[in-house]
Amino acid sequence: MEVELLQHSNLKICAHAIRTCWQSFDKSDEGGEKDKELIDRVGNKFKHASTLEHLSYTFYISDVSRALLQELARHRMASPSVKSTRYTLKELKNEDSFTDGMSMVELKKNFASKDEVYADEHMLRASKYLVWTDDLGVDFSSTVALENLRLMLLDGVANDKAKYCLPESYKTELTWTINARSLQNFITLRSSKAALWEIRDLAKKLYDILPSEHRYLFTNCINDEL
Amino acid sequence: MEVELLQHSNLKICAHAIRTCWQSFDKSDEGGEKDKELIDRVGNKFKHASTLEHLSYTFYISDVSRALLQELARHRMASPSVKSTRYTLKELKNEDSFTDGMSMVELKKNFASKDEVYADEHMLRASKYLVWTDDLGVDFSSTVALENLRLMLLDGVANDKAKYCLPESYKTELTWTINARSLQNFITLRSSKAALWEIRDLAKKLYDILPSEHRYLFTNCINDEL
Amino acid sequence: MEVELLQHSNLKICAHAIRTCWQSFDKSDEGGEKDKELIDRVGNKFKHASTLEHLSYTFYISDVSRALLQELARHRMASPSVKSTRYTLKELKNEDSFTDGMSMVELKKNFASKDEVYADEHMLRASKYLVWTDDLGVDFSSTVALENLRLMLLDGVANDKAKYCLPESYKTELTWTINARSLQNFITLRSSKAALWEIRDLAKKLYDILPSEHRYLFTNCINDEL
Amino acid sequence: MEVELLQHSNLKICAHAIRTCWQSFDKSDEGGEKDKELIDRVGNKFKHASTLEHLSYTFYISDVSRALLQELARHRMASPSVKSTRYTLKELKNEDSFTDGMSMVELKKNFASKDEVYADEHMLRASKYLVWTDDLGVDFSSTVALENLRLMLLDGVANDKAKYCLPESYKTELTWTINARSLQNFITLRSSKAALWEIRDLAKKLYDILPSEHRYLFTNCINDEL
Repeated sequence: MEVELLQHSNLKICAHAIRTCWQSFDKSDEGGEKDKELIDRVGNKFKHASTLEHLSYTFYISDVSRALLQELARHRMASPSVKSTRYTLKELKNEDSFTDGMSMVELKKNFASKDEVYADEHMLRASKYLVWTDDLGVDFSSTVALENLRLMLLDGVANDKAKYCLPESYKTELTWTINARSLQNFITLRSSKAALWEIRDLAKKLYDILPSEHRYLFTNCINDEL
Repeated sequence: MEVELLQHSNLKICAHAIRTCWQSFDKSDEGGEKDKELIDRVGNKFKHASTLEHLSYTFYISDVSRALLQELARHRMASPSVKSTRYTLKELKNEDSFTDGMSMVELKKNFASKDEVYADEHMLRASKYLVWTDDLGVDFSSTVALENLRLMLLDGVANDKAKYCLPESYKTELTWTINARSLQNFITLRSSKAALWEIRDLAKKLYDILPSEHRYLFTNCINDEL
Repeated sequence: MEVELLQHSNLKICAHAIRTCWQSFDKSDEGGEKDKELIDRVGNKFKHASTLEHLSYTFYISDVSRALLQELARHRMASPSVKSTRYTLKELKNEDSFTDGMSMVELKKNFASKDEVYADEHMLRASKYLVWTDDLGVDFSSTVALENLRLMLLDGVANDKAKYCLPESYKTELTWTINARSLQNFITLRSSKAALWEIRDLAKKLYDILPSEHRYLFTNCINDEL
Repeated sequence: MEVELLQHSNLKICAHAIRTCWQSFDKSDEGGEKDKELIDRVGNKFKHASTLEHLSYTFYISDVSRALLQELARHRMASPSVKSTRYTLKELKNEDSFTDGMSMVELKKNFASKDEVYADEHMLRASKYLVWTDDLGVDFSSTVALENLRLMLLDGVANDKAKYCLPESYKTELTWTINARSLQNFITLRSSKAALWEIRDLAKKLYDILPSEHRYLFTNCINDEL
């Protein structure tokens, strides 16, 4: 999983928005400690959460599964633009076989250890397209599904049909814009122990990549328990 | 694909909302022709679209693929509650093998026609869990993936990992509440020729199942061209 | 202030939505105690708040001020259709003078008590259009503004200009549709001691008029302290 | 009315979001003509409008009336932080009388022309707090209401009551963040001949102050007819 921060608002904008209400612009320190304390007090403690909507972040998230995408898309106060399987599946046509007809049984015979399997060049090539779960059976099943998908595409099956046999581990990428209020909700719910492991990892990566001066707004949202 | 309409608002409510603006309650005919004409005029022709938000519909949609769900979830002005793979995958544990080890090559040998394949009891059982694309290769690949998933679950792999090898053809179900304004947008975009075949089918089914007296609000949204 | 509940969803719909996730329809008691406990557990305790969006309420709210409307409109997850001043100000043209040229000084001379002022027929007629604050000075100022507005309209000034001298105490009415999740937020913020007295009153009236079987979902939102 | 643009996204971000779908990053010209054409084609012509949500603008809007604010607040896909009358009305306490007891009749006697009235120092001071409609009767009524409000505040009436006699011409200010999709909707509806004159003026000012390279996205929204 890769997370990149493409753009973010300046804290000054949020402080300016809050100071609009009280017309206290002269007390601003241009996004410094006084402004930061004000944002936390009004946006978080006073629950005047709409003021946090002036801050928005655009992330580029890649190497995440379409299983994760199913969950991320439920956060409706955000704007996702996602790599389209309909337009990009053709990328598989240039690949060699991911299995060379090997079955799970053969796989177990051929390799001395799990690490060796993941180091095999077939699996390495497959890992460009699939998110590994660290369960060999699951990951090999995904690889078989990937290989079948590749064969369908070579056979000339239209993307709109071929995509139906895509495994949910298939990697996707998205440009995602979300405001601070909605991101607080995301991090709160998705860093929880109850969340899916992959989206929990995303929640933490989003938090870590925030501009350091913004991070304090989200510290109470992060659930660090294991 | 099955679509059921669980609840819907009364047109009278929308007419009442519009008549609030002009205080013209005395001109209402309680959801009759005059009110219907008013809703169309103000909500559609005058583009005072927020008045259409007073009308909401709750559908139960089943036997649709998770590929479709990926697209449906992008309609963010709606409330979906979806069958959770995390909680329900266990349903596969009670099933017999969906392939009995049969490969695609054997499949082609064993059956005289495509129709025969789909009539086979393995495929019939698989069709409880998978949306068919009518492309035999794709559908058999999905069946192989389904079988591998079943084996993972029998092996005791946790759902949160096993679900990664789920094919996107896997069937899901959802309770979906959406207001008339957002449903107009959905039907407009998703009944288009450019839309994925399955969601296009859904757009038409949603339209068809609307209460007959509501349907006129969506007639201009439906794209009937083939 | 008058609040009427024009329509509401059935709790069964929300329970059905939640049971979709776990496919536990067979455990439903059709909106009875088991379903109610489930909704509270999942929607409130588990913070799976989107499930509460399946419940929506349409209120007719009247005899509230445009000062209140300014605050209510900030709750953006809701659909308001509001009495238009642009179309309805003409209602004032049929009224007699609200002051007969009387000034505040004269007012104080003419009446023995505050109660007598409010019982005067001028003030009674004005109260059809204005929300009283129980501060005589403020309310008489509003009445003077109302009278000036009436004179402008009789003079033939267009509504789009005349409305600029409208006092914020001017009464308005609206049809308002809001889902349970957003209504929880409204009641939480607006029943607080920090809220404007009139909207605080509205928050409590909305709560009181809810169907009795729905009210438990909002009990923790109401702030009863004085 | 004053409109200032406090921040805006870079067009490159929107182009990047669109190129995510097709993975066509190598065709970008970093926000140049090719990217601009792409945004127009996908966001506008293909109606893939969610891609425009990656662009957001924060405006500071001042010297607009609370009558305008009532309408602006109906655009719910935006984040307004507004000067609070509850906290700022005290600003009136330092002002001298806005009328010196002068009535409308006296006003007409004392001045030779309408221009002279607006040039009078009382009216000039009042214009700091009120939006003029260019109808002298309306504007003088607003001034009388302003003066009454000032007296209430000097009398010690609490803001939460005093604000009820505020005229809707009272000036307000806001920091307003809105994405390009919602701004298109705003400009389309509010530059129409049917819109209130003041918000129509705002729609045009918002358009004019957009970064020149962004303006083409809104050109078809502006209604220039008189």
